[in-house]
Amino acid sequence: MKISLMPRVEDININDIAGSSAVVIDMLRATSVIVTALYNGAEHVVPVLTTDEAKNAIYRFRNAVLGGERKGLKIEGFDAGNSPLEYTREFIQGRTLIITTSNGTRAINNCNEAKNIYIGSMLNGKAAALKAVENGTDISIVCAGTQGRFSLDDFTCAGLIIDEILKMKDYELSDISFLARHTYTQNEENIEGFIKNASHYKYLCSIGQGEDIKYCCSRNIIDIVPTCKEGIISIG
Amino acid sequence: MKISLMPRVEDININDIAGSSAVVIDMLRATSVIVTALYNGAEHVVPVLTTDEAKNAIYRFRNAVLGGERKGLKIEGFDAGNSPLEYTREFIQGRTLIITTSNGTRAINNCNEAKNIYIGSMLNGKAAALKAVENGTDISIVCAGTQGRFSLDDFTCAGLIIDEILKMKDYELSDISFLARHTYTQNEENIEGFIKNASHYKYLCSIGQGEDIKYCCSRNIIDIVPTCKEGIISIG
Repeated sequence: MKISLMPRVEDININDIAGSSAVVIDMLRATSVIVTALYNGAEHVVPVLTTDEAKNAIYRFRNAVLGGERKGLKIEGFDAGNSPLEYTREFIQGRTLIITTSNGTRAINNCNEAKNIYIGSMLNGKAAALKAVENGTDISIVCAGTQGRFSLDDFTCAGLIIDEILKMKDYELSDISFLARHTYTQNEENIEGFIKNASHYKYLCSIGQGEDIKYCCSRNIIDIVPTCKEGIISIG
Repeated sequence: MKISLMPRVEDININDIAGSSAVVIDMLRATSVIVTALYNGAEHVVPVLTTDEAKNAIYRFRNAVLGGERKGLKIEGFDAGNSPLEYTREFIQGRTLIITTSNGTRAINNCNEAKNIYIGSMLNGKAAALKAVENGTDISIVCAGTQGRFSLDDFTCAGLIIDEILKMKDYELSDISFLARHTYTQNEENIEGFIKNASHYKYLCSIGQGEDIKYCCSRNIIDIVPTCKEGIISIG
């Protein structure tokens, strides 16, 4: 069995993803938000592509909140932005989060050919790895990237998850899967410092949204694995 | 000014490449062949996409030889395969090489929007870097990849060239350009050992073509930079 890796939404390869267990990563910050919100008691997360879809979806879900970002910032009229630190238990427990972000929600919505769609981040890397291994299928790691560009942060997070997978079971690695793991293991002693080289981190800092980096780089502190089925994410 | 990097032919981005100095890399083995052939006195190299094109082109060039590969092996009826070690001075001096390969010649032929198209490899990495810097334009590094897949070998070679560029002058790096350089500098003490992780190297070994690895990993031993103009490559 093999692990394939798609470094951007645009690289999603139907041959690789079909029938696989897909782990979707947008660690700065959509998938870190989704993992945190569900860990803190959100009932569901509904990823949508546009702000209009988000506003329409709120009529379908009781007690929902609107979250997400455009250009890294909270969307006008929304209840929360895209910082995982906003999604405290006090705020999100028992509620449905309807979320739209620039890259992450698009990645999740492009994995429909996968057998299973899991939400991955550094926060729940080991748990996501275990879930993918337990399925006994090929595994595809789908990095969101940033506006069509390769993201160092997502790629390094992919490396963490691949490293955790290989601690459990052997898989055949493509060159890019090998490189992701290599990148992670070469930098695991100072992962936060390494992620700070990512252009998206620098952008977040420039708009005053850089404070999440420490939290988003916390590894394996959450053991839930959000699973997306028919467009709705819940704890699988 | 910036350095962009396209990890596969399929990733060539018109916005990044237009007006830039492009360095095309297929280190295992097309661009290593081209650099070697011209260094050893070939008059020109003509990269073509198909074996039929190659056979037709031979009528246009006096004293030409046909070289290249399909599935790594010499093409039936051709004069030489795709090992740089075949392109000795005795064989190639004063002749035109018409070459068709699975990935490299396709990459070269897809860079037409660039201001300059240079042929890069580990053999002439430093010289290619200098040539690109001297132009004063943005630089794009185009990796051929292998059959639509990311190739660890081309990516590491890109890292060498980016590293040489940055020794001469500062450029803005995209995340993927940063990662290529990081990958190279983390492994420069044992580059041959690292490149042996590439799936294409393993494939070449499986068909008895692995003996070129040592030569193709020799860094900065050739100081010519092949330049492609109107479909014909010569020493620029």
